[in-house]
This record gives sequence, structure tokens and C-alpha cells, in this order.
Amino acid sequence: MRIGELSARTGVPVATIKYYVREGLVSGGERTGHNQVRYGEEHVRRLRLVRAMVETGALPIAKVREVIAEVEEPGRDLDSALGVASRALASHRAPIEEPEEADLETARAIVRRRGWDRIPLDHPHLRTLADVIGRLRLLGLADMVEHEDRYALAAEQVAEADIHLLMQREERDEILETMIVGTVLGDALLTTLRRIAQVEISGRDIKGPDHDRADPECSLSTRDADAGPSAPVAEPVHAKMAMSALVGFSTVQVEWAVLR
Amino acid sequence: MRIGELSARTGVPVATIKYYVREGLVSGGERTGHNQVRYGEEHVRRLRLVRAMVETGALPIAKVREVIAEVEEPGRDLDSALGVASRALASHRAPIEEPEEADLETARAIVRRRGWDRIPLDHPHLRTLADVIGRLRLLGLADMVEHEDRYALAAEQVAEADIHLLMQREERDEILETMIVGTVLGDALLTTLRRIAQVEISGRDIKGPDHDRADPECSLSTRDADAGPSAPVAEPVHAKMAMSALVGFSTVQVEWAVLR
Repeated sequence: MRIGELSARTGVPVATIKYYVREGLVSGGERTGHNQVRYGEEHVRRLRLVRAMVETGALPIAKVREVIAEVEEPGRDLDSALGVASRALASHRAPIEEPEEADLETARAIVRRRGWDRIPLDHPHLRTLADVIGRLRLLGLADMVEHEDRYALAAEQVAEADIHLLMQREERDEILETMIVGTVLGDALLTTLRRIAQVEISGRDIKGPDHDRADPECSLSTRDADAGPSAPVAEPVHAKMAMSALVGFSTVQVEWAVLR
Repeated sequence: MRIGELSARTGVPVATIKYYVREGLVSGGERTGHNQVRYGEEHVRRLRLVRAMVETGALPIAKVREVIAEVEEPGRDLDSALGVASRALASHRAPIEEPEEADLETARAIVRRRGWDRIPLDHPHLRTLADVIGRLRLLGLADMVEHEDRYALAAEQVAEADIHLLMQREERDEILETMIVGTVLGDALLTTLRRIAQVEISGRDIKGPDHDRADPECSLSTRDADAGPSAPVAEPVHAKMAMSALVGFSTVQVEWAVLR
């Protein structure tokens, strides 16, 4: 295909394609005559991969080049290329200061308890985890750390779906593209669903048995003032005991009083 | 306590405390004499809440004022204040363009399948979800949407832990502070654990049975080149069948060949 069609197929402007070729991120097409260059399906795949890294992953060109080099190195396996991409995507999250040893130990203990024995104990992701744990501790949410095993279990379930998705791809470039887009948009997916579930569970549990005292127009689960006409709000269920079973604590009776 | 002690207790500089008082986010202390103002525990709690919104939540002062107004409105219940805070934290994620109707329908179907019947079908969080779904679709990851129920289940488990944490707090300001810090840092916690689990599962599953061909120095689960001395890497287990059971698909034999 000509460069115009390549641009249309990938959504990458012609000038940007030429820039990527100059930067060595995409190979040049095959010269077939005077001012005629032809591109193939491998260019479509590579451009999609580069676009995923630059646009979705917000990686600088130098990082993109690093990942591409890894993809193209003949001796390297796919797992290695995925590792380079994963660390590149995480590099802007890496803590600036070295995390405290106690927080690192907490991070390692979470990993050990889940039986994750393939991740080296000095992996950069573990330092990031220790950094988050330290910030929670400083902000008075040390008890959130007790819930981390539940977070870790949820993360494991999601990661299994993620790796399954990768394994349904065939081409190296496609697998990497899926990994990069899936990592970035998957974060957005997961955190958005978490907020939705919080609204749901808060409406069910915090509102509690005598929610009727509250003005229905002002609750977490009703609409934003400027969000347009509201859908009918489901009748709240008095799920005090159900919640107690779900979250596994027994002092719920005391806490209802406190929360209202 | 004097303003200096208030500053030390909360980590908020004296000039910033005075600014928050002028902006009406924190009430002034009790004047007890010439140039003497005393502050109490309620100021400590309020300042921590404001700090959480400004520093951890990165909310603009106008949004902070909105949440504070909600907290102080006598008729409003806690659920309502939580709702305002939740929407304020999400407002920078809201899609600029209206999501497509088909993506909104996909988002609503996920919510319905999980039985989340308290969230109105026009809630802003659902529009954000539809936007993420649309971007996945445009980037060729429509099949990730099939995994969204797994994402939704994981999000629900995490949200239950989150709401449990809120219910262990007693004061309104403390509950809101926990909700804001927990939402923001909880996202970081969850997405970091997801990356760690991906490394773990990728090492276990993608590497596959004849991983020995790969250079052990280059794998996803081994160390970064500049990450200091490496911990011993656990011997990979040939978990082909284990993974097949975990992620529930049957074409694993074919895919091993493709992935190497």
C-alpha cells in the first residue's frame, strides 16, 4: 500500500510516519519506482505498536526506541521484550527517594503471602509498591495496608485476564501493543469500576437501614446536579447483615450509629 | 494549641493555614487574648482533610470548598458528602466528548450483570467507563471488554475493603479524609499490584515449558540492568496445565508455539 493508505489504516499522519521512519522506529517501505514506496502489513502492525506506546503509554521516543530494539533483537524472547515495556511504562511512577526498609519489607511480605515467587525482591515495581505503602502510612491509613492482601488478590485476578488476552495474540508486535494499551487503559478500566463499586456499596452499606431520613436528591448514588435527567433510583435494600457477611466484621451495629 | 503546634501536628505551614482560614476552608481559632488564637482537635482534623484534598487528591480550591460546604450543611448526610467528594475526584477523568451510545450500553450491561442496581444509569462514572470502553474498542482491544466482568468483580472486592475502612472511622472529617486518600493512593496500590502480578503470571505462563532457551538475564521477572544486585530468581515451574486451569481456556498448546 502507499503511505496515504498506511496513514488511513493506522490513524498516524503521513508526516508522523516519516518521522518514525527517520527515527528508526519503523522500517522504510520498499521502493518500487520513481517516488513510489510500498508498505506492507508489518508496517501497519509496527505503527500501531509505536502509536500505542507514544499516545496511550505516553512514552518518550527514547523509551519507544528501547522497546523496539528489544523486540527486534534476534536472541531475545518475548518475555524479555514485555519486561522492558513493563518497566518503561512504570518508570514515571518510580519513587524519587529510596523507600524505607520497613515499607519494602511490608511490600515483600504481601508478595510472599500471595506466593508470587517469580518476582525478584529488588524489582522496581516492588520499590513503587513500598513507596505507596509509605505514603499511606504517613497519611494515617496504615490500616489500609491490612487490606492489601485483598487488593493483591484482586490484582492477581485481573492480571490473569490480562495475560490470557496477550496469549490470544499471534504476532510479537501485536502482543506488545496489547500489553501496552491493556496496561494503560486497563488501569483506567479498573479504577473507574472501583469508583462505581464504591458508589454501589456505599449506597448499600453506609446509608444503612434508616436511609429514608436522607434527602434522596443528595445521596452518593443519585445524580449530579448538572448531569441531565436522572434515571429512576433503585429502592435501597436494607443490606446491613448482607454487608456484614461480605466484609467480614462484627461491629457493624455500633458503626451505624456513628455514621449517621 | 497555638498555630505553630497546629502546623507541626498537621504538616501544613503556618502561612498555608492562614490562607485556608481566609478562604473559609478552615474556621478561625478562638481568640483568647491579645495576638493569641487557640486551635482545637477539630482544626487538626479539618486541616488533614483539606490537605488530603489539595495534596493527595490534587483538587483545586474551588472543589475543596464545594466538598467542605457539603460536609458542613446541617441537613446533608455523610453519603451525600462522600458523593460530592467522589465526583470531584473523578471530574478530571470525565470524558470531553459524549461517549457513544453503544459503549454506554456496554458499560450499563457490566453494571447490570454484577447486580449493581443502586448506581443511576446516567451517573458520571458510567460515562467515564463508557469512554474507556470506546478507547479500548478503537485500539483493537474490544476483546478486553469480555474480561470486564472479571475486572468488575475485582473492583467490587476492593471497594468492599474500601467501604469497610471508612466505617472504622468515627468523625465525618476523618471519614472523608480516608475516602479521598484511600481513593487516590488505593488506585496507585491496585495498579502497582496489577503490574507485579503481571510479571509473576507472565513469568509463569508465557515463558512456558522450555523457558530454558531464554537467557535468564533478559526475562520479565529478572532484574533491571541498573537495579543493583539481583535477588536469587526462583526456579520457574512448568505450570502449563496450572495456568490453563487458572485462566480457563483450552487452546494453550497451540499458543505456546506462537509465543516463542
